[in-house]
Amino acid sequence: MSDGTRVGELLARLTLREKVGQLNQRLYGWNATRRGPAGWELSEEFHAEVERWGGLGALYGLFRSDAWSGRGWADGIRPEERPAVAAMVVEAVRAADRHGIAPLLVEEAPHGHQALGAGLLPTNLAVGSGWSPALVAEASAAVAAGLAADGVHLALVSTLDLARDPRWGRSEECFGETPLPAVRFTRAVVEGMQGPDRSRLRSPDGVGVVLKHFAAQGEGLGGRNAHAAQLGPRDLAELHLPAARAGVEAGALGLMAAYNDIDGLPCCANRRLLTDLLRTEWRFDGLVMADGHAVDRLTEPLGSPVAAAVTALTAGVDLSLWDAAFTRLEEAVEARPELLADVDRACARVLTVKDRLGLLGEPAPLAAAGDRPQRLERITLASRRAAEHGLTLLTDRDGVLPLSPRSGGRWLVVGPRADDVTGLLGDYVPPLQPDEARSVAGALADRLHGTGVVVDVRTGDEPDVEQLAAAAGVVVAVLGGTSHRRYTEQFADNGAAAGPTEADGGEGVDRASLRLPGDQDALVARLRAATGAPLVAVLVMGRAYVLTAVERAADAVLVAWYPGPQGGRAVAAALLGDTQPLGRLPVTLPAADGVAPLHDDDRIGADGVYRDAPQAVLHPLGAGHGYRRVGVTAVETEMSPERVTVRVALEAAEEGRWTGPAETVVLVRARRRGGRTWPRRRELVDFRRVQVEPAGTEVAFRLDPSAVFVDPAEVPPFAEPATTLVITVDDHDHELTLRPPVAD
Amino acid sequence: MSDGTRVGELLARLTLREKVGQLNQRLYGWNATRRGPAGWELSEEFHAEVERWGGLGALYGLFRSDAWSGRGWADGIRPEERPAVAAMVVEAVRAADRHGIAPLLVEEAPHGHQALGAGLLPTNLAVGSGWSPALVAEASAAVAAGLAADGVHLALVSTLDLARDPRWGRSEECFGETPLPAVRFTRAVVEGMQGPDRSRLRSPDGVGVVLKHFAAQGEGLGGRNAHAAQLGPRDLAELHLPAARAGVEAGALGLMAAYNDIDGLPCCANRRLLTDLLRTEWRFDGLVMADGHAVDRLTEPLGSPVAAAVTALTAGVDLSLWDAAFTRLEEAVEARPELLADVDRACARVLTVKDRLGLLGEPAPLAAAGDRPQRLERITLASRRAAEHGLTLLTDRDGVLPLSPRSGGRWLVVGPRADDVTGLLGDYVPPLQPDEARSVAGALADRLHGTGVVVDVRTGDEPDVEQLAAAAGVVVAVLGGTSHRRYTEQFADNGAAAGPTEADGGEGVDRASLRLPGDQDALVARLRAATGAPLVAVLVMGRAYVLTAVERAADAVLVAWYPGPQGGRAVAAALLGDTQPLGRLPVTLPAADGVAPLHDDDRIGADGVYRDAPQAVLHPLGAGHGYRRVGVTAVETEMSPERVTVRVALEAAEEGRWTGPAETVVLVRARRRGGRTWPRRRELVDFRRVQVEPAGTEVAFRLDPSAVFVDPAEVPPFAEPATTLVITVDDHDHELTLRPPVAD
Repeated sequence: MSDGTRVGELLARLTLREKVGQLNQRLYGWNATRRGPAGWELSEEFHAEVERWGGLGALYGLFRSDAWSGRGWADGIRPEERPAVAAMVVEAVRAADRHGIAPLLVEEAPHGHQALGAGLLPTNLAVGSGWSPALVAEASAAVAAGLAADGVHLALVSTLDLARDPRWGRSEECFGETPLPAVRFTRAVVEGMQGPDRSRLRSPDGVGVVLKHFAAQGEGLGGRNAHAAQLGPRDLAELHLPAARAGVEAGALGLMAAYNDIDGLPCCANRRLLTDLLRTEWRFDGLVMADGHAVDRLTEPLGSPVAAAVTALTAGVDLSLWDAAFTRLEEAVEARPELLADVDRACARVLTVKDRLGLLGEPAPLAAAGDRPQRLERITLASRRAAEHGLTLLTDRDGVLPLSPRSGGRWLVVGPRADDVTGLLGDYVPPLQPDEARSVAGALADRLHGTGVVVDVRTGDEPDVEQLAAAAGVVVAVLGGTSHRRYTEQFADNGAAAGPTEADGGEGVDRASLRLPGDQDALVARLRAATGAPLVAVLVMGRAYVLTAVERAADAVLVAWYPGPQGGRAVAAALLGDTQPLGRLPVTLPAADGVAPLHDDDRIGADGVYRDAPQAVLHPLGAGHGYRRVGVTAVETEMSPERVTVRVALEAAEEGRWTGPAETVVLVRARRRGGRTWPRRRELVDFRRVQVEPAGTEVAFRLDPSAVFVDPAEVPPFAEPATTLVITVDDHDHELTLRPPVAD
Repeated sequence: MSDGTRVGELLARLTLREKVGQLNQRLYGWNATRRGPAGWELSEEFHAEVERWGGLGALYGLFRSDAWSGRGWADGIRPEERPAVAAMVVEAVRAADRHGIAPLLVEEAPHGHQALGAGLLPTNLAVGSGWSPALVAEASAAVAAGLAADGVHLALVSTLDLARDPRWGRSEECFGETPLPAVRFTRAVVEGMQGPDRSRLRSPDGVGVVLKHFAAQGEGLGGRNAHAAQLGPRDLAELHLPAARAGVEAGALGLMAAYNDIDGLPCCANRRLLTDLLRTEWRFDGLVMADGHAVDRLTEPLGSPVAAAVTALTAGVDLSLWDAAFTRLEEAVEARPELLADVDRACARVLTVKDRLGLLGEPAPLAAAGDRPQRLERITLASRRAAEHGLTLLTDRDGVLPLSPRSGGRWLVVGPRADDVTGLLGDYVPPLQPDEARSVAGALADRLHGTGVVVDVRTGDEPDVEQLAAAAGVVVAVLGGTSHRRYTEQFADNGAAAGPTEADGGEGVDRASLRLPGDQDALVARLRAATGAPLVAVLVMGRAYVLTAVERAADAVLVAWYPGPQGGRAVAAALLGDTQPLGRLPVTLPAADGVAPLHDDDRIGADGVYRDAPQAVLHPLGAGHGYRRVGVTAVETEMSPERVTVRVALEAAEEGRWTGPAETVVLVRARRRGGRTWPRRRELVDFRRVQVEPAGTEVAFRLDPSAVFVDPAEVPPFAEPATTLVITVDDHDHELTLRPPVAD
């Protein structure tokens, strides 16, 4: 029986209430179960909800463990318990549903499953710094295998947001500021989790993906979370739609409609976006889930919850999250029977997704690929590699890196992030067991064990810091922020931080200033004054901070972003030359406070504009280099009407302290002139991670002319289109100007 | 002969070169003449230009005198010389033009004519603070009379820009951040200068107005001048088009197309804006002038100057300013004869404007209304009144104001603006003669003469400041910024500041930080520590600064904006109680750095968002009060399908130190719920300056329901429209909720 037929027949048998039940996902999943005397059992709240609808559309966060849910190692569902708990939930719903429809088990997995001991990846910003979609596909597949083995059906993953304003606390959830990485990483995530062409959806190691957030959430005015995206249709299309489209084309089962409005219209009420574009133009066949309470948020402005629900439904929202309003669709249809067609359409989409996941028939027995430790090891390895790939070396004056432990002596590892494990992780993470992660100081101490180097560790507040720095052979300042939430903190109804917090990042923690929190600039200056020894700054952060003062004081600056549980070890390995830093900046680093927003792809640059901050950019997108510099020796281009080929010949510098292979990232950016619109300064049109052979390596970028040149339809009379390509390798730009091939 | 016929017949007789000549305005007008042995004569450059075209379309800035033009009292055209010089220029052009067409003499007059001794008004931001369109109409009429008497035809006046980001150096040129004041002040300027229905255009005291800038220039990303306006069509229409439309309806002869792009499309290349909207929809019949070199700026992105010219022309630019590119229209038409129709259309518009100004026939003898001193006195009085109306009292703890000189003693007037005259003026001003203005300290000393009070004046850098403060009976700290340009500075080709400058505001002087320049926060803290005497802070500034620290330290804070040459006297009068502060904030004052942009009419407020700046707003739009507080005693509403009437009963507090009449400004703002779009927090829908009678005064606001309630076409099913009106008087908000009348 084809999907469509099965869903259609099922739909014909559902009552209105049953249909509306399929569109709701009201429970906080961690309240669905409780630990009873004989193990996990279902809660009254769960039973009541299933009874209300005669089934259950979806259940969010059954396994979510974090400060908001309040679930931890003491009282949460432990890793080995998850498959059975999932099966119990599914079975209970199927038993209560007269059609035997299973619920969708939906979990947060923005960088690993937000559940106990499930394994975590670095945050997206660190991953984006690695410029390796292949690695992301691998890592996503590893996470998906773990989710699938636990009985999860749909993973919520942030891939669509762009870090357009570093004041935004959710910057860490973005792969970067510009569209192309989001496009490629989105594809990698979808194909990694679902398999190419959804091939792993019913296999034991695949899950469906809901991509968030659709659309333009990174444009919140002033970096304010979920505030208006002030944006016109051209910028929207050029910046914020490509990743979503790539996700749709890769087969993502779902998209999450964002909180924000775009030019006044909330995404959840935006029919042009959710229906005309997504369904009619892009032919999206999955489901649209609203962000948590996003439909309820329409109630106040619209004046009634029924209006909120109907507006969202008719715009194109299929499945709601936590909302009270969406339950009111029943009475809406009773008042206006023509709305039944909208309910049916949404319900068919939810059922179709269930069908694709095998949830309409008998549940397939879980035949997990390998056992839990193996799955976890796979995630851990991917996490470590991703952390290494994300480490970005911005400056290394006098080549102080890698550090050599040969001379022995005392090293000082100092700063608020020096011995901080949770600060490495970012937001949307579960509590870890002590063996799941290592701090930078801990990893350095491990690695230096037996070398004769003694490691002193300080937060920076202690009275002996300057004295220790003066006596140290090496000072490593581990600076930055944290998105860690304590269990004692308060949260909004959607899990965003809402009360006092020590965090300076993550959802609900936006900042007006981009200076490092606390007095970290002063700490580095004090350290610099105290010692002439190598002073290395390691930055742990989830947003672009102003590093101007740090860079002035330190000999070397290594940005780790939030590198995840393996980040401490990755940093230690890079500092000591076991590996080299492989990352390149995924965002522009501002040189001063108050210059945001600014982006590499702005139409006009921000340098030279502000009288009190004439240098607005400290480092541009793509900045960074490894221990062994790579240079461009030749660039050749070849053009045909179908293809622009750019061949870049790369050569690595002589071996120095670093004797490993040379590796770099090549960025190709374009300023496309000749059209009516003002050209962006530099649009990223391609990028590639490259290992450079001892004899040199040539990489060929095969570009579609439509990505290189302005659309001929946009060229007015007398204009002379020309594109300046900027090829960036290891902080050096190579420019060439191309004219479009003349059509016959 | 009707206008159309006369212009049509003339057009038929013009050669292509003559037509293109009418569309160009290439000269910097101050280079058109030079002082010869027998008085002013025409320059070679002028003759060459006239000869090139066989006439001259327009001449910009014949009288412009400022640091950029380099013209001053020593070498510029003096006031009494202007009529004859204008006549000489016009006569020379008419003689060289075989059709006898006179040139348009175009001058900058953003707040008074930028010429020697012509009289200046406060900047727009100060005027906006006065909330009195009637006063603006008066002041504009006074300025127009001066311009007309000097032989000027068109005045360039900034009225359309909104101060959407205080980082923008041109914030001072805006009437405020929100559309309604711009709408009303634009109308006042046009009717003041041109007369109602253009009735004074050919009279001896009217000139034509070119309104700038069209459109959305205040939205430059990050407050960066002329950078991208990232904006969708809804925000554009709601925020930035209403003032332009009001100007068109009031009959403005011209609009200036802005530098910036909107959603990628430069205004000068935006056919949708300049033609579809402006001509087809709004029926604008004047001319569109491009901003200076704005067409040339299209050359690099389009690849050729001819493309730049043709793109601008076909989009709807009629008259260029300084551009080289627009001269290339001749060759464009030769290559593509169909473009002649576009040249003809633009030329007809220029000629039509000339015809409306009486420049196609014999020149009317100048019959100026009254003599120069009378005209100047009229401007001076309007300027003084506008300065008084703009003074905004934000805080007055313990009622230290007005100050009483009765106790005698020494007063300290201190700060970088204390004895600074030019700092009062803003950008786009000529050099003044010593008797044209008075500093705050100077005016205070004048006013206190004979009272026994001795005034010490310091900039704040002197070693004896704290000692003087400790001994002073009153300390007046005159703080803020300056947009003053020195003759030694460098300028861009459009007159914007381009080299080092001491200015912190004006065109080309954007700032990343909103903190007061220099160490003024520290100065106030030092003064506070030194004295328990009344400490009054007077702020002279052209943008919203962060006044949080000043407000904490000072007993009273009075914002003067850039109050113009009469500002020092106005401040002295207000401080001493000869007048009371009459202004209310025209923009939101941020409480911290890094929170911009934020606006009263944002869809969501910024308070409570930033973790490091939970209070984002120090004072909202409309804040301020006089010496005698006014309160609301009752609000009544009356609704019909045609009209919402809101009656507000006002009562003044008892007389205190201030015994003059009570006066206030009532703001009516609306949060309009029930539509699909996210409602703005507070849209200004009406405002009124009110004198409150001893027995109380009632004001009635008669509002169109379409301004109060959401558009019924935008109301989705089940929604329940309701509008919260916020009536603000003297820092107090009164809220009421209305539901739209049900249509029959």
